[in-house]
Parts: sequence; structure tokens; C-alpha cells
Amino acid sequence: MQGKQVENKTRFLTLTQYIPEGIPDEKNFKLLEKTLPPLGDNQLLLKLEYFSVDPYMRGRMTGKKTYVDPYKLGEAIQGSCVASVVDSKSNQFRQGELVGFIGDWADLQIRDANHVRRMLEGIDPEAALSICGLNGLTAYFGLLKVGELKEGETVCVTGAAGATGYLVGSIAKIKKCKVIGIAGSEEKIQFLKDLGFDVCLNYKKDDLRKELSRVAKDGINVFYDNVGGETADAVKENMATYGRIVQCGAISMYNRGDQVPQGPRLDSIVVFKRLRWQGFIVHDFHDQFDTALQELAKWYREGKLKKHVFLQRGGLTAGPRAFSAMMHGENIGKTLVKV
Amino acid sequence: MQGKQVENKTRFLTLTQYIPEGIPDEKNFKLLEKTLPPLGDNQLLLKLEYFSVDPYMRGRMTGKKTYVDPYKLGEAIQGSCVASVVDSKSNQFRQGELVGFIGDWADLQIRDANHVRRMLEGIDPEAALSICGLNGLTAYFGLLKVGELKEGETVCVTGAAGATGYLVGSIAKIKKCKVIGIAGSEEKIQFLKDLGFDVCLNYKKDDLRKELSRVAKDGINVFYDNVGGETADAVKENMATYGRIVQCGAISMYNRGDQVPQGPRLDSIVVFKRLRWQGFIVHDFHDQFDTALQELAKWYREGKLKKHVFLQRGGLTAGPRAFSAMMHGENIGKTLVKV
Repeated sequence: MQGKQVENKTRFLTLTQYIPEGIPDEKNFKLLEKTLPPLGDNQLLLKLEYFSVDPYMRGRMTGKKTYVDPYKLGEAIQGSCVASVVDSKSNQFRQGELVGFIGDWADLQIRDANHVRRMLEGIDPEAALSICGLNGLTAYFGLLKVGELKEGETVCVTGAAGATGYLVGSIAKIKKCKVIGIAGSEEKIQFLKDLGFDVCLNYKKDDLRKELSRVAKDGINVFYDNVGGETADAVKENMATYGRIVQCGAISMYNRGDQVPQGPRLDSIVVFKRLRWQGFIVHDFHDQFDTALQELAKWYREGKLKKHVFLQRGGLTAGPRAFSAMMHGENIGKTLVKV
Repeated sequence: MQGKQVENKTRFLTLTQYIPEGIPDEKNFKLLEKTLPPLGDNQLLLKLEYFSVDPYMRGRMTGKKTYVDPYKLGEAIQGSCVASVVDSKSNQFRQGELVGFIGDWADLQIRDANHVRRMLEGIDPEAALSICGLNGLTAYFGLLKVGELKEGETVCVTGAAGATGYLVGSIAKIKKCKVIGIAGSEEKIQFLKDLGFDVCLNYKKDDLRKELSRVAKDGINVFYDNVGGETADAVKENMATYGRIVQCGAISMYNRGDQVPQGPRLDSIVVFKRLRWQGFIVHDFHDQFDTALQELAKWYREGKLKKHVFLQRGGLTAGPRAFSAMMHGENIGKTLVKV
């Protein structure tokens, strides 16, 4: 299996400096070059094919530790990637195979064979980076484990046309629930309707409090929140007794820097309605990933979960543009970069 | 067992009108009189001996439905009571026995025998209305079931010198936890120190944020909150990853009427620290009361839980005074009325 080192220079993207607030754009990133060492035993030389842009990355760009360390200045931005094997010193992977992994925004990189995984059967790279990737897992565990969703309940999801949000609603439909999706454009609302969401609300136009109390007369059982802020306030006022608020993200807060925004206190309502408000990150469920991926892949193959990918082309340097567009909420579904 | 009806008139306390905001005082209550019907089969005529005043009653005085119905104007205020059996048409209870029940603030009342319970072995009326009553059960289920407290964790409790709060801290000490109590007077702080709390903070004097970050360097695992508001904000900023916030009450909010107070948004911190903020009321655990009462009674008999009762004397009409004093936070431990 010993291959010769076919290339030894790579380009990678790094931050020019930390970005405490605001939405990052292309000038916050720069390309650097480095020389790769020779492949060691059990290592792979990987050529990046696709990579994912995700809101959690914003936190790593502030320079402060949250639940993950900040990106290091001068080192590559990292995220979910699919790459092809260029050279292999592992007997588990052969040249030309596609693998998924958490990797660098770099043309070429070296990874240990036990840090990558083969594509699941019938799963293409786009599905591997969305339905059978962090978005699918995040939707799955948030809704079913944190939210403890039961068949027939009423679910509300914010950021509903986003990469995770549309999968939350789709899984809730598989579970025979009534699904209310909240998004921010008429195009997104149409997308949600086409997916079979029961109620679709535009937070920029609709009176959310009024509409929610009308369409969810008995209250919302599970609120899957990706955005936080005032949109979330309106939903929280319409929870059912014993309702669960699943805090997956709070994208409306991520670009605000150090100010702690104020909002209505939930102290009383949490007691009166016995609400449970819980935050999670998908890695909390790491030991259950395999089982979940099998189920997500099955739903994808059966056509119950559908792929909706906005593919940004243009190689490595399309990454910052794709990230910025995603943070601005410009795209529907999953934003990926095709290298 | 057929007894003759020994008395047939009773006095009871009712609200003069609903009280949307502010702390109720004596002029919000009045005494009325009514004639009792004859005792039916399996019924008891009960003479009130002790009754409990509790913060949750405040909600029932607003005239709005929360998790319980409002008190009805012209009908008796209700709460936890201990009474003696004056007459019995049940073969389960004999004259002179003491029973506990949810009953009227009335000198005399009729109850079905299956709506009252005998005192547990070795449990006096004062303990029956505190440690082995709703306060003990609320502390027990909130801390152990909602909070999922584990041995050796760090616990913080607000309203720590109150009827439920001091039992929360005491149970946490039984479970070998580090206990931080927050209260509002030096007398209360001394009471908590005498109980063996590890850290006692006065929210009116101490810099809570600074002190909490100093004494709980690894963060607070379980925050048992009785008060809400700004005191709670300071604790929430000092939670450990995977911390649980148990919202038992929010007494600082109860007298504010309809205004929705504002406070710092937790949207981001709930995700980053994977917090779980959950409200409960003790009746959610109704089917587990018997087991819990056995354990609470055992701890009381063993001296691990101690009785701390402020006994207001003066009959039925001492009720409003006792309630008002309790809402003002004037007393330490449990406030009861001896009729």
C-alpha cells in the first residue's frame, strides 16, 4: 500500500484576525500555503471535494472559547468535509475513495485513517454533508432526544428553511406531528409549503403571536429554536403545558459581540407551564451517532428526507462567500462549497 | 359509628376582591359564616388546628388561572391543613384523631374520609405541614428528580431560609453536596450557617456574581430557584456545563401584575453550556408522594432534617397576617398558623 508522496504543498484558508461582532465577509479570510510532511503509517493524503459552512463556526471566529476552541490565527478554518483519497498508507482506504471527516479548508491535507469515515451506502457527498451529517444528526437528537417528541404533537421550528430547520420539520412530519415553520422570506415560505409543513409563517411580515395562538390553540409541545431573540419570544408565549424548548442555536445573537441582550423574563411561565428549556450540541450524543445515521440514511433512501443543497462553486476561496451568505440567511436548505 | 352533628355553623375566610398586584394584607380578607349540611356516609366533621401559608397561594389571589384555578370570591381560601376529627361517619377515622388534607381556612368543615390522610408515624402537625408536607415534597422532587442531583455536586438555592429553601439545602447536605444558600438578612444567613450550608450569601449586601464565581470555580451544577429576577440572573451566569436550573417558584415576580419584566437573554448561554432550565410543581409527582414521604419522615426522625417553624397564633384571622409576613420574607423557615 506504500504510495509515493504525489504533492507536498497545499493552500489553506485562515482568519486574518478574530471577529468579535458582525457577519464575517471575504476580507476576514486569507489564503496561506504550507508544505505537508511525508505520509506516516495509517495516514491518508486527502484532496478536498466539498465542505460545509455552519453557523456554529461563527463562535469559533470570535476568539473566545465557547463549547469549542476558537480557530487559531494562521491555521486552517475547520469544518465538515468530503475529500477523495489521493494517497493511502492505510489498508482500509484505497486511492479515489470518498471519505467524510472534520477537516481543514485546504486543498490537500493528511489525516489518520481512523479519523475519517467512508460514505454510507447510497449516500452521496451532498447528503453526507447535510442529511447524514451534522445537520441531520442535530435535527434528529434535538427533536427526538432533547425534545422527546411524541407522535401527533405540535412542533414549531425557527430558521425553518435552513440546513437543520428543514430537516427538523421533515422528521416531525415523519413522526406524524403538526409542524409550524417560521422563516424570513416568501421564497422560503413556499419551500416549506412544498415540504408539507402544516403552517408557514414569515417573521418579517406576520404577527407571530396572533398567528401562533390561532394555529396552535392547545399550545406548542416542542419548540426547536435555531434563532433566539424576538422571534423565539413569540413562540415561547405560546407553549403548551409541559412544553419543551430545544435550544439548538441562537443565530440572532451570534454577531452581537459582548452586549447581553435583554428580553422578557420566563421565570414565571416556566413554572406555571412546567416548561423545560434545554440547550444541546450534537456532540453530546456522539456515542449514538451510528444508530442515528442508519435511520437518517434509510429515510433519505426512502425519499422521506429530501436533499436541498445550495452549491457554491469556485474552489477553496468560495468558502468565505458561502459562509457569509449562509449567515445572512440568503440560501434555502444546506449551503455547501464544491471545491 | 353514626355520630350526631355537634355543630352546624362555621366561620371561614374569603377574599374581598381579587388582588392583581402588590402583597396582600389583612384588609384583602374577610370572615363569613355559613351553615354546614349534615354529615354524609364516609364523611368527617373536622376542626381546624393548624394551617399553612405558601407563596403559590399568591397566584390564586390574582383572579387568573395559572396551573390552579383562582380562589372563588365568597368561598373559603384553601391550603394545607391539619385538623382534628370532631365527628366521623367513616370507620377509618375516630373522634379526636389528627388528619392532614387540603382544606378551607374555616373553623369547621366536612371532608370525605378518602380526602384526608392520617399523620405518619412519629410526625407531629408542624412537621406534617413542612418537612412531610408540600415543602418537603417540593424540595425533594425538585432537587432529586427535576434537578437530578448527584452526590458531590455544587448546589445553589435562593430563598434559602424559606420553608422550602432550607429543606433543599438540608437534603443537598444529606446527599454530600456543596451548598450555597442565598437569603436577604444577616439573621437568615446565621440560620443557614447553623444548618451547615457551606456558603451563605446575602443578596442585599454581597456582590453575588463575584462571590459565586469565587466559591464555585467549576460552576453550579444545580440551581434551585425560588425567587427569579436579578438574584437568579447572577446565579445563572455561574452555571457549570450541563447545569440544571430548577424553577420552583419566582416570588420576586408574583406581585408585579401584568407587566412582563425584562432580563438578560439566556439564548446563547443555554446552548454553549447545555443548560436545562425546567419548571415544575410538586403535584406533577403525585404518584410518587408516598415513597418520598417515607424518606422525608425517616430523615426527620433521624434528625437529618430539622423543623424550623414560625408559629403565628390567633386563630383563623391570623391567616392573612401570616400570609403577608411570609410574602414579605419576614420569617425564617416555615410559617404556620395555630388556630
